[in-house]
Amino acid sequence: MEKLAQLYEGKAKKVYKTSEPGMVWIEYKDDATAFNGEKKGQIAGKGMLNNEISAIFLSLLKEKGVDNHFIKKISSREQIVRQVDIIPIEVVVRNIAAGSLAKRLGWEEGTELPQAIVEFYYKNDELGDPFINNDHVAILGLATESELADIHKQALRINEILKEYLMTRNLILVDFKLEFGQTPEGQIILADEISPDTCRFWDAHTKEKLDKDRFRRDLGNVEEAYQEILRRLGGKVDV
Amino acid sequence: MEKLAQLYEGKAKKVYKTSEPGMVWIEYKDDATAFNGEKKGQIAGKGMLNNEISAIFLSLLKEKGVDNHFIKKISSREQIVRQVDIIPIEVVVRNIAAGSLAKRLGWEEGTELPQAIVEFYYKNDELGDPFINNDHVAILGLATESELADIHKQALRINEILKEYLMTRNLILVDFKLEFGQTPEGQIILADEISPDTCRFWDAHTKEKLDKDRFRRDLGNVEEAYQEILRRLGGKVDV
Ligand SMILES: Nc1ncnc2c1ncn2[C@@H]1O[C@H](COP(=O)(O)OP(=O)(O)OP(=O)(O)O)[C@@H](O)[C@H]1O
Ligand SMILES: Nc1ncnc2c1ncn2[C@@H]1O[C@H](COP(=O)(O)OP(=O)(O)OP(=O)(O)O)[C@@H](O)[C@H]1O
Ligand SMILES: [Mg+2]
Ligand SMILES: [Mg+2]
Repeated sequence: MEKLAQLYEGKAKKVYKTSEPGMVWIEYKDDATAFNGEKKGQIAGKGMLNNEISAIFLSLLKEKGVDNHFIKKISSREQIVRQVDIIPIEVVVRNIAAGSLAKRLGWEEGTELPQAIVEFYYKNDELGDPFINNDHVAILGLATESELADIHKQALRINEILKEYLMTRNLILVDFKLEFGQTPEGQIILADEISPDTCRFWDAHTKEKLDKDRFRRDLGNVEEAYQEILRRLGGKVDV
Repeated sequence: MEKLAQLYEGKAKKVYKTSEPGMVWIEYKDDATAFNGEKKGQIAGKGMLNNEISAIFLSLLKEKGVDNHFIKKISSREQIVRQVDIIPIEVVVRNIAAGSLAKRLGWEEGTELPQAIVEFYYKNDELGDPFINNDHVAILGLATESELADIHKQALRINEILKEYLMTRNLILVDFKLEFGQTPEGQIILADEISPDTCRFWDAHTKEKLDKDRFRRDLGNVEEAYQEILRRLGGKVDV
């Protein structure tokens, strides 16, 4: 397979066409952004770490029957995935109150939710990824009611699998963001990445944050946190 | 029926116990607030106007089969209603983009929505009435899934009735806020008020705003706008 023209450069990844129809080449970058791109920086080694971490999670999900875009990792910072039409909805699943949910409901960060919840955000940088509801999804024409129900259901299933798995690695899955896309056949599958950039992971005992919040909140040891996640997932960290 | 102890004083109304079990006495005030209470003022005659306007809308809805708390108007600024346990959800229905929706979606104010939408806000002054979704309603324990579906359905039905009726009065119903409450029998019925304080009304031809936006945005002629609404509904304005 050959890497062809760049299709897109996002804040964390580059996407390239390939010689194989229906497949794209993804390159994970070290660039880090937060607060809708207002805060910018680099996290040394992040591209490699997230490429590996994402590959581990997406493979696990496949094994557990959750079809997704992942095909294979081809180098330290590159992977091949199925090309999909990304549905511009950021799907957030939460188990514990943190970030904007803690603020919205006035709940202390760390409060366990009585049940996992799903939130939809309109993936639109200019608008700052606003929080939306099902009716907004409808009038924006982002997904049909049944597609949205499918996404909601898949998101909760993914949460169950990841939460349980991470607990065996001494990690609490606080919340995370997913993106789904439509295949040419019209199937809606999980796409994008699952990494410390897109999840909140807390050490199960110390509650230490091991994710992008270390960058957002200037807590230090950002690289080390990403490395620690990979280590706990059984990956090899080259330093 | 006797007016007994005051149960509650809100920003726009006072609520009193009555000698009749299951009924409360509501007194509409001239006080006006906006932006979660940050802007405060008075609108001369508003209490009387909203009492009358609300009575007209709630009576119309009853006639059309939408059960609600209204029993009878007993004086210029007072009405008797069924006492309910207010569900702390502000239910907003929208036909045209305005206010926070225009901002959220980046749509120009005045854009007609492809279909009416419903939004839920957590009625909580301290939190600034945050926008929430069905999953938040669940974890806050505000309503069950079927209760919420009932509220959503009632809200859209109310919209149809009011929109159609207002069109015959040369008024566009842009959006409005409803509150629902639970009766001792467990029925969920429309409560609170429907008035220029809680709706956006635009003149169908000139698109002139005839509602609280005149107060929020310092457009002048606030009282006159409320009077004009009552006049178009066939009510008598005493000036
Ligand atoms: N399988 C896929 N097929 C096509 N595009 C994908 C796939 N998986 C992810 N993408 C898209 O690749 C883009 C690059 O990812 P990245 O995380 O860098 O973007 P972003 O900066 O988060 O978001 P954006 O650039 O879209 O605002 C994103 O738009 C993402 O939705
Ligand atoms: N039928 C009813 N039974 C009991 N309470 C009611 C009924 N209808 C309305 N209420 C409540 O009466 C209160 C006073 O109304 P008002 O509009 O002044 O309150 P508000 O300032 O908007 O809101 P709040 O004071 O609750 O923050 C509100 O809390 C409203 O929910
Ligand atoms: Mg991204
Ligand atoms: Mg009120």
